[in-house]
Amino acid sequence: MYYDTVEAMNRAALEELQLERLKLTIEKARKSPFYKEHLAGVNTDDLKSVADVTSLPFTTKDDLRSQYPYGMLTRPLDDFVRLHASSGTTGTPTAIFYTQEDLDTWADLMARSMYCCGCRRSDVLQNMSGYGLFTGGLGIHNGSERLGMLTVPAGAGNTKRQIKLIRDFSVTVLHIIPSFALYFAQKVNEAGFDVKDMPWRIALIGAEPHTEETRRKVEEMMHIKAYNSYGLSEMNGPGVAFECIEQKGMHVWEDAYIAEIINPDTGEHVAEGEIGELVMTTLLRDGMPLIRYRTRDLTRFVPGDCACGRTHRRIDRIAGRADDMMILKGVNIYPMQIEQCLMSMPEVGQNYLIELITEGVTDQLKVKVEIKDEFFVEDMRALQGLQKKIAKNLCSEILITPRVELCQHDSIPKSEGKAVRVIDNRKK
Amino acid sequence: MYYDTVEAMNRAALEELQLERLKLTIEKARKSPFYKEHLAGVNTDDLKSVADVTSLPFTTKDDLRSQYPYGMLTRPLDDFVRLHASSGTTGTPTAIFYTQEDLDTWADLMARSMYCCGCRRSDVLQNMSGYGLFTGGLGIHNGSERLGMLTVPAGAGNTKRQIKLIRDFSVTVLHIIPSFALYFAQKVNEAGFDVKDMPWRIALIGAEPHTEETRRKVEEMMHIKAYNSYGLSEMNGPGVAFECIEQKGMHVWEDAYIAEIINPDTGEHVAEGEIGELVMTTLLRDGMPLIRYRTRDLTRFVPGDCACGRTHRRIDRIAGRADDMMILKGVNIYPMQIEQCLMSMPEVGQNYLIELITEGVTDQLKVKVEIKDEFFVEDMRALQGLQKKIAKNLCSEILITPRVELCQHDSIPKSEGKAVRVIDNRKK
Repeated sequence: MYYDTVEAMNRAALEELQLERLKLTIEKARKSPFYKEHLAGVNTDDLKSVADVTSLPFTTKDDLRSQYPYGMLTRPLDDFVRLHASSGTTGTPTAIFYTQEDLDTWADLMARSMYCCGCRRSDVLQNMSGYGLFTGGLGIHNGSERLGMLTVPAGAGNTKRQIKLIRDFSVTVLHIIPSFALYFAQKVNEAGFDVKDMPWRIALIGAEPHTEETRRKVEEMMHIKAYNSYGLSEMNGPGVAFECIEQKGMHVWEDAYIAEIINPDTGEHVAEGEIGELVMTTLLRDGMPLIRYRTRDLTRFVPGDCACGRTHRRIDRIAGRADDMMILKGVNIYPMQIEQCLMSMPEVGQNYLIELITEGVTDQLKVKVEIKDEFFVEDMRALQGLQKKIAKNLCSEILITPRVELCQHDSIPKSEGKAVRVIDNRKK
Repeated sequence: MYYDTVEAMNRAALEELQLERLKLTIEKARKSPFYKEHLAGVNTDDLKSVADVTSLPFTTKDDLRSQYPYGMLTRPLDDFVRLHASSGTTGTPTAIFYTQEDLDTWADLMARSMYCCGCRRSDVLQNMSGYGLFTGGLGIHNGSERLGMLTVPAGAGNTKRQIKLIRDFSVTVLHIIPSFALYFAQKVNEAGFDVKDMPWRIALIGAEPHTEETRRKVEEMMHIKAYNSYGLSEMNGPGVAFECIEQKGMHVWEDAYIAEIINPDTGEHVAEGEIGELVMTTLLRDGMPLIRYRTRDLTRFVPGDCACGRTHRRIDRIAGRADDMMILKGVNIYPMQIEQCLMSMPEVGQNYLIELITEGVTDQLKVKVEIKDEFFVEDMRALQGLQKKIAKNLCSEILITPRVELCQHDSIPKSEGKAVRVIDNRKK
């Protein structure tokens, strides 16, 4: 779609474009009450390359909250045509405002994203996501129309009707939440249809974080290719980064955003390929630009070039939230790293518990792991071997050797609601 | 918005425009499999004035069903970007397809409609309607953005959040279902707010049929001006006819539609001002034009000119469905006529029942009416007087004198779900 003109641009030209747009963005941002003050010490002439973005101050979610509702706007309220807001009824929500120009940019980025994973004008997209204040609904909808796909605004729920629409209109692309996709595949079977006979070929499943394992399961159960994506309402919504058909990381549209990955503690860039907090700067945002916005989302840049030929860097699937980070013996550890490591082992069951404890003067990491029944044998040597294997695998991921305790299926108490995976019992 | 150029056009010029667009529409329609055959005998040269539209054949909902899904389309499927469909999971649904041009036309008509009842670019609109396949959600949303209003896609439900959004963003226009508006007003009071302190000034309440009494109640309880509108997905969705600030009928956008009102039995035009079935022809529909579409909705043209200066004719609020029509002694009677007549009388309670019976060789109309307790007195003469008064009022509305039976509050059995108002016990 924009492949020739933007997406396969050589890096030097792309960074030149970023620098130019960064300067314009700073000038624009200064029209808002917040950035007028926040960027007071910044002289755009000092920015010699896009790497100098590091000289700019961060913007945080707390800044958005403190400026609620209008403090980040660069234009009179009359110039805005859309707002999306976080859904909280308590506390201060965050609100994102869009001018018509912003909506056009967003639709373009979204259309490009969908093209990138194989969607074409001749496709029929069924949007199985809720609409409303959630940016996923209208974001995908407008991008799909922009790409010229026939768009079916089915909304969430009503499995029976979804199936009927898909069959009646030969739907080829689904926007579907991955957890719902697994349920939906079952329902299709129960309704007497073979997923292989369904007209679909592409599922956009970026709406909720999920593991690679879940993606493969969706692909297998639905007989479909499933593509991950990344977005957040502060950066418009979906369409910030999207997988190409290679499925090896999500291209960040770097003509529209500057992406950095930092150590959430120090604010410094991490080494290439290391996990850290994603920081985003908008380059095409008109009414509400954000500079060095701390997303709190953890990811890493995927090293190397992509076989698709796009030069825009790729980020890995989100590995958790920066707020979840634990620091142990000076090392940053994220629960998601431990989870991904455990879940990749065939012996490990569904549940685990991370505990931080103090022994004498040193802090220790304990990981309690449920083992599948068929591996929970009475052979002590086998169990000890498994224990060592888990500890070793974890160490290679988190650089610390934890104490591993094996336990039987269902022996870790389940909490109601969101699972409690980390208990911090360290002495402060 | 388009007031000068289109909405206040003199009738002769408007009808000239309609005729020209009608001819183009016929030529366009003939590209669809259905109309190629359906309009085979039509020669556009024979159309000398827009009144000659009566020489064209009707299109019915059954036609739409028989052509499901693609038989009405004038273009290859690839050229369409949106579809809305009726929600049924059983039976054949109807599907309406839109090209990008159609969506643009629709958004323009919708924006014009909202401008017409006083909405301006500086307003903030909260869309409290569900999105998805229902045309009301995306229709209002796109029109609101087109007009340049800040649009809050709140969606349905969640009263607490709706109130917070309205207050936080100084929402001035609500798109709200009238029955929900009455409930919502209570909730606002219960939350400790005075409706007079709320920032709103305009409610768009056309999403569901309602009586004038309900409108006045909404206006009073919410301290707001409430405007009715008319639309159906076969004619895009909302934005077909809209009230201006005079609140005396809904202007049909006659540059975009030809509206006729016919006797549903004979297909002939009714006399000016009489109730009949609304028949609509699209004049700006690109991908799926419809010619003389039988809406089954009952209304009448409001006679005379409108004080707002718009020359486009007005239709009255919808008086029911043509399918509900009863024929008695050769006279067409609609239950809604009886309901409106009864509900305008202060003595009448909430419930009534219409019964058609055969006595000897003639059919008779019986109306059983619940009377409010304070009027259900033991004075036989007063009751007989009331009985006569009701019969007389009904006769002046339906041209037949029914037998009226008075009964006490709550004495007519209530049915679960949709109220059964008509029982036909005639001998066939």
